[in-house]
Amino acid sequence: MLHGYSSRILKVNLTTCSVVREELPEQYLKDYIGGLGLGARLYYDLVPPYVEPLSPENAVLLMTGPIQGTLIPGSGRGLFISKSPLTNRFFSSNFGGYLTRELKRAGYDGIVITGKSDKPLLLVVDDDNVEIRDASKLWGMNTYEVQNEIKEMLGDKRFQVACIGPAGENLVRITAIIHDIHAAGRGGIAAVLGYKKLKAIAVRGSKEVEVAYPDEVLEFFKEISKKARNHPFLVKYGTPAVMETVNKLGGLGTRNWQTEVFEGASKISGQTTIPKYKVKDLACSSCSIGCVKVQEVREGKYAGIWAKGPEYETLYALGSLTGVDDFPSIVVAARNCDELGLDTISTGVVIAFAMEACERGILTKEECDGLEINFGNGNTLVELVRRVGYRKGWLGNLLAEGVDRAAKVIGCGSQFFAMHFKGLELAGHSPRAVKAWTLGYSVGWRGGSHHDARPHDIEYANPVEVRAFSIEGKPELIRDTTLRVMVEESLISCRFYGGYYGVRLPTEVHSKIIKMVTGWEPTVNELTITAERIRNLIRVLEVREGFDSVADSNPPLRVLYEPIPEGPSRGARTDPREFKLMLRSFYELMGWDVRTGVPKEEKLRELGLDFAIGYCRRV
Amino acid sequence: MLHGYSSRILKVNLTTCSVVREELPEQYLKDYIGGLGLGARLYYDLVPPYVEPLSPENAVLLMTGPIQGTLIPGSGRGLFISKSPLTNRFFSSNFGGYLTRELKRAGYDGIVITGKSDKPLLLVVDDDNVEIRDASKLWGMNTYEVQNEIKEMLGDKRFQVACIGPAGENLVRITAIIHDIHAAGRGGIAAVLGYKKLKAIAVRGSKEVEVAYPDEVLEFFKEISKKARNHPFLVKYGTPAVMETVNKLGGLGTRNWQTEVFEGASKISGQTTIPKYKVKDLACSSCSIGCVKVQEVREGKYAGIWAKGPEYETLYALGSLTGVDDFPSIVVAARNCDELGLDTISTGVVIAFAMEACERGILTKEECDGLEINFGNGNTLVELVRRVGYRKGWLGNLLAEGVDRAAKVIGCGSQFFAMHFKGLELAGHSPRAVKAWTLGYSVGWRGGSHHDARPHDIEYANPVEVRAFSIEGKPELIRDTTLRVMVEESLISCRFYGGYYGVRLPTEVHSKIIKMVTGWEPTVNELTITAERIRNLIRVLEVREGFDSVADSNPPLRVLYEPIPEGPSRGARTDPREFKLMLRSFYELMGWDVRTGVPKEEKLRELGLDFAIGYCRRV
Repeated sequence: MLHGYSSRILKVNLTTCSVVREELPEQYLKDYIGGLGLGARLYYDLVPPYVEPLSPENAVLLMTGPIQGTLIPGSGRGLFISKSPLTNRFFSSNFGGYLTRELKRAGYDGIVITGKSDKPLLLVVDDDNVEIRDASKLWGMNTYEVQNEIKEMLGDKRFQVACIGPAGENLVRITAIIHDIHAAGRGGIAAVLGYKKLKAIAVRGSKEVEVAYPDEVLEFFKEISKKARNHPFLVKYGTPAVMETVNKLGGLGTRNWQTEVFEGASKISGQTTIPKYKVKDLACSSCSIGCVKVQEVREGKYAGIWAKGPEYETLYALGSLTGVDDFPSIVVAARNCDELGLDTISTGVVIAFAMEACERGILTKEECDGLEINFGNGNTLVELVRRVGYRKGWLGNLLAEGVDRAAKVIGCGSQFFAMHFKGLELAGHSPRAVKAWTLGYSVGWRGGSHHDARPHDIEYANPVEVRAFSIEGKPELIRDTTLRVMVEESLISCRFYGGYYGVRLPTEVHSKIIKMVTGWEPTVNELTITAERIRNLIRVLEVREGFDSVADSNPPLRVLYEPIPEGPSRGARTDPREFKLMLRSFYELMGWDVRTGVPKEEKLRELGLDFAIGYCRRV
Repeated sequence: MLHGYSSRILKVNLTTCSVVREELPEQYLKDYIGGLGLGARLYYDLVPPYVEPLSPENAVLLMTGPIQGTLIPGSGRGLFISKSPLTNRFFSSNFGGYLTRELKRAGYDGIVITGKSDKPLLLVVDDDNVEIRDASKLWGMNTYEVQNEIKEMLGDKRFQVACIGPAGENLVRITAIIHDIHAAGRGGIAAVLGYKKLKAIAVRGSKEVEVAYPDEVLEFFKEISKKARNHPFLVKYGTPAVMETVNKLGGLGTRNWQTEVFEGASKISGQTTIPKYKVKDLACSSCSIGCVKVQEVREGKYAGIWAKGPEYETLYALGSLTGVDDFPSIVVAARNCDELGLDTISTGVVIAFAMEACERGILTKEECDGLEINFGNGNTLVELVRRVGYRKGWLGNLLAEGVDRAAKVIGCGSQFFAMHFKGLELAGHSPRAVKAWTLGYSVGWRGGSHHDARPHDIEYANPVEVRAFSIEGKPELIRDTTLRVMVEESLISCRFYGGYYGVRLPTEVHSKIIKMVTGWEPTVNELTITAERIRNLIRVLEVREGFDSVADSNPPLRVLYEPIPEGPSRGARTDPREFKLMLRSFYELMGWDVRTGVPKEEKLRELGLDFAIGYCRRV
């Protein structure tokens, strides 16, 4: 028997209000580890192809991996998995905190939610007691209010809560699920919960998670924690420190990626704001970095308002991308996103898109519902966040659909500057200044997420000729980091421990972690094959719904045709030819058909995915 | 009773092989005239929204108007109408010859074909004798062979035949229906017939078409014919003369619209080739212009091969657009298109698209099935026509889907240079050198057809500042010419008589024609309202299937973002802002919602289209 797992999941059907506990076969755990891998397999089994994301048939999975609830540093993460109403594809959204630790302690590796209720519900998991309660009086509450209310109701602050805000209730496609002050930000899974009328999940557990080698785990915890406490910038500044780095190399998305140098970067970067505004550090379960900073506005009309972070990605999306360098406005916009349950990245991208559309004169004043929409306008930023979250007005309602759908309504060639991959708004790492990212985003299962491939962990250290102007070795790099990410996302290990566990391929450290926790010790080679198995299965999930052409991976046209106009990465773009070359080469490295990216029969067989071959046959 | 009409249509169901004659209500004739208007109304009644173009439920209509079979000059035209498998919208395709005269003489205003057969069929209409015959031995024949074979079979060369070629049989989406040597070229309706397994329609009629005022018609015929015989260039050169005009003003689509000046224009223009290669002039029914020239290659490997035209549009699409200035290659490619039943315009555009994709390195040699694909290569042109018509190889099969679908598979940002409006490949009149065309194509019911609005009849005479660099008055111009086109397409009057009947709004000449033929004399104002009624009904046909956003009218991105790089129209493009302004203004002039282009309730009521209001309500 493998340690570390509960080996069972909870299946909740909201239509029938039924709850079932199901054993997980041990082979699933060895074949797919947990988290992303296990979730992908459960999703494959549960969600038939072509299901509408907003339908009772779609499932939402809350997943843990083997390390949650243990002392392994960086284990304070979890995943929500569903078919995304934004991208129409299998999606996973990673978040921090204590929720999955609690779920493991309650005795579950995951929760699977299907069906749809007519009235708002709350799911309470309290060890073996599982209850579906009426949540009518919670409906409409923002994410911070509702968590407090639930803990009050349940009479114990140890309950960990994940919830949706008004944006999820309004089926906004760029929503986030909020747990504590953490966000499962991407892909709009909160809208699926909103559709299903599940306002929140509260979890409390009392069982210790048993590991195979507790002494080794403790030793490992001590060793890594000590190193992590000396992290060069995360301990002191958190992710906001990244802003200056990225700006300095000329890859900071600014004014909807019209340029990649932001003149206001130093006004909003961590190095400037943390000393002035930070009121608190927070850490997830078993983490000694504590990268989460809480910052509070001290003066002006927003005095007294605080927000989590804002993290680097939020500073990019709500800051440089909208041209706003007024830090208090960003704090307020970020706080509102969190309270409404909006993804700050996607929200910033749709707002920046609207700003460029206005600048170009293809959105009229009337279509803007009277709002003055222009780059650098902090008031507009704050107001638009609210309108998107509540689907207020013609434009707010439209932007709530995400940038791809919005461009398809606004037309006038606006798809040229709709910054997304696969329908997912682009994160704050440049696909032009780091050419490998063009490939990385394109072959990511999510699209515009900076957690699908992460070449920048390596490329940011390289000179501009290598990172921005060469395609040599990029397909190999993306293949390698993709495989590593499979392991990290299946263990559900925090990315910020990559420096200690490995930033390219799966490593012996990953093997060792699995051994210490589960007792099973896969070799690095076995682990790499497992990573391949997971990635191939996820590719099948795309392929079986017809996403099997190069065009399904199209980068934004701006990335292909418009060079960065200034700064250290000036002149960089990914020529369509380079993109094609990288893509084919990546497909080849993966054992996929070079033309379509469809996994080859022999590859699937080699990985034990014979059951999926039928979806990959092409005439 | 109105003269000029037969007042009945033939309804043929290919599933049941049933034939029904149906009376047309007189009010339909007054409300919709005939041709496009009447066809749109019959289509509205018959084809429910969201029908698959390639399904038994889709209908193909062969329409005449009031003037077919009379002496009215320019009346030798007809229309095929269906839901296009290329654009997924209501579509009409205009063609010349003698077929519709014969149909009128047989006693029908139109034929409506529904259902689907399992084996190939031939429809024979011989006055009141209507027969559906097995056509198994005709299947696979090219369009010229099959017409001869059918006339032979039926024992009378007076039978007029419309047929499909191998391309239609292969469900190629860019097919043409061929009658004699004329083509109902656009929109791929031949594929609908191919799906239904109707290889051909043969028609012979023996009844005189009675008109209300025969003496006046005769007088009119004499007067116009005399003028027409002096047409400044069509009599002598036909449409091939247009090539030099368009090239001189810097608006000739060249190498997939990368530029609009073609250095080889004078090598392939009518002024050069007609004196050398013309072997015959041909005219449609009741026409004294005889714009159709037949040209034959005299030397080299293609010696002895002749083709209809090639018309200006064909010279553009298979010539300048592919960079080919070798006239014999164009003749052969054109002849092959006609025999295979391919639309020369769409075929040229998809080939030029493939050439640019190769030039940019985003189509590999392997994807080109070993073919060397580059601009200016006449051998490749001829070979690719064949591959498209037979769906040969990966690329031939893909290009057979049309440029929009092809770009969606090829990806790599190729949609930037996929030259189409609404999925219909762009005709040979520049939307940059004639800015009004950007609007004209966008608001056309077909998209990339140069017969939807025709501002160039006026704009080509204007200086470059007016035609290429100003948007002033363009929405009014497009509104006006659109309304005129409604009248022309409903009478089914040849465009080349526009110079005598009117090139902007409907005129008294149009009124007079209707009076002379039918006995009913609408005022110009009444006629304009009728034109509006028809255009609004056709707009409803788009709107009821969800085509109600600006993006559904998106111009190709190249038109919006890439200025013409050289020549007399250098620097011209249609800025997205200008496009938006023109579009809204056009919508306003039409009485449509300025944001969506959905006809307003009061406008539909005013036009007697109350029955369609339900489709135009928006929450």
